[in-house]
Amino acid sequence: MSEKKKMTIIVFSGDMDKAYAAFILASSAAAMDMDVTMFFTFWGLNLLKKGGLQKAPLSKMNMFGLGKMMMQKNMEDANVMSLEALFRDARELGVKMLACSMTMDVMGISKEDLVEVDGYVGAVEYLSHAKESQINLFI
Amino acid sequence: MSEKKKMTIIVFSGDMDKAYAAFILASSAAAMDMDVTMFFTFWGLNLLKKGGLQKAPLSKMNMFGLGKMMMQKNMEDANVMSLEALFRDARELGVKMLACSMTMDVMGISKEDLVEVDGYVGAVEYLSHAKESQINLFI
Amino acid sequence: MSEKKKMTIIVFSGDMDKAYAAFILASSAAAMDMDVTMFFTFWGLNLLKKGGLQKAPLSKMNMFGLGKMMMQKNMEDANVMSLEALFRDARELGVKMLACSMTMDVMGISKEDLVEVDGYVGAVEYLSHAKESQINLFI
Repeated sequence: MSEKKKMTIIVFSGDMDKAYAAFILASSAAAMDMDVTMFFTFWGLNLLKKGGLQKAPLSKMNMFGLGKMMMQKNMEDANVMSLEALFRDARELGVKMLACSMTMDVMGISKEDLVEVDGYVGAVEYLSHAKESQINLFI
Repeated sequence: MSEKKKMTIIVFSGDMDKAYAAFILASSAAAMDMDVTMFFTFWGLNLLKKGGLQKAPLSKMNMFGLGKMMMQKNMEDANVMSLEALFRDARELGVKMLACSMTMDVMGISKEDLVEVDGYVGAVEYLSHAKESQINLFI
Repeated sequence: MSEKKKMTIIVFSGDMDKAYAAFILASSAAAMDMDVTMFFTFWGLNLLKKGGLQKAPLSKMNMFGLGKMMMQKNMEDANVMSLEALFRDARELGVKMLACSMTMDVMGISKEDLVEVDGYVGAVEYLSHAKESQINLFI
């Protein structure tokens, strides 16, 4: 019987800034010895595509890509890891990553399009994790 | 004394894609025998307007309505129910639907403008459900 | 040992409408005698800037600022407090306000740029509150 605290994050958005928030929260929680499950659905699935983390747009002030470049420069200056490094970090810390099988169908995404994940599942599987978790976020 | 797991969803957004996520999660949880309460507020109230589910815009890539048409086509091809069918499904499964009375005032929406709901309530009523629930999402 | 119910809100968005939702929920929960912690991060930090509450944009229908003016007019007509009044109200009710130190670095925001808060902290501090809370929202 596990006494670990648990967190789930529904990653609905594919935006770079929200992806940063999601991965930083997930990695921090895993480093605190929590069980963390991320459920990627709708636009969030784009982050799991091969090469997708580099392509994530910024949700705000994204005029001509300037906002995104400035954000990335500021991230580097502040010693914040890149999305790719945050993703690898989360993986190594044991964060479980699940892809939403329904939206894969809807958006025409195949398993081959995605990086390696821990499962292709539906809402029921997500809910079975969330109902046993202390923290559940929709990002 | 009920041992049922509980979920609440604040439906803040009126966008079609987020509405899909909200209704699919709500119906799936209700089908798993959870108590589910949806609290529609701000733009989410537009979904409760008579005919509002057909008018919901897509939050992303909605150029000239093309994105929305493609999404609906892909939804059909993937055998995903329409928003209207998902809404009816959620109703039949016992999902409780509450309209935020404060934002009805602010946005000039009357009870007659809305489909039948289970109550017109404020934040306190929402919170009284949420504090007893295992899953609370803001969509 | 406290038996109080607890709520946390991650305020990621800097939009006026989402700020309203966040402050109304926070104040209502505090008035119900819950412990409430707001964690302002990314664009949400703009709300904590001196004068920032007046500048918050509306997330939808913000054409030429018209949407925002109409929303504020309707808020007044419906006797809803201004964001500034809601903020003061939340403060007086004991809502704890934390600024995300990492995004302060990334966005080049100094402590002097912000109104008085209860701390400048990272994701770990947020998570330590959230894992003991019944309600955790990402707005």
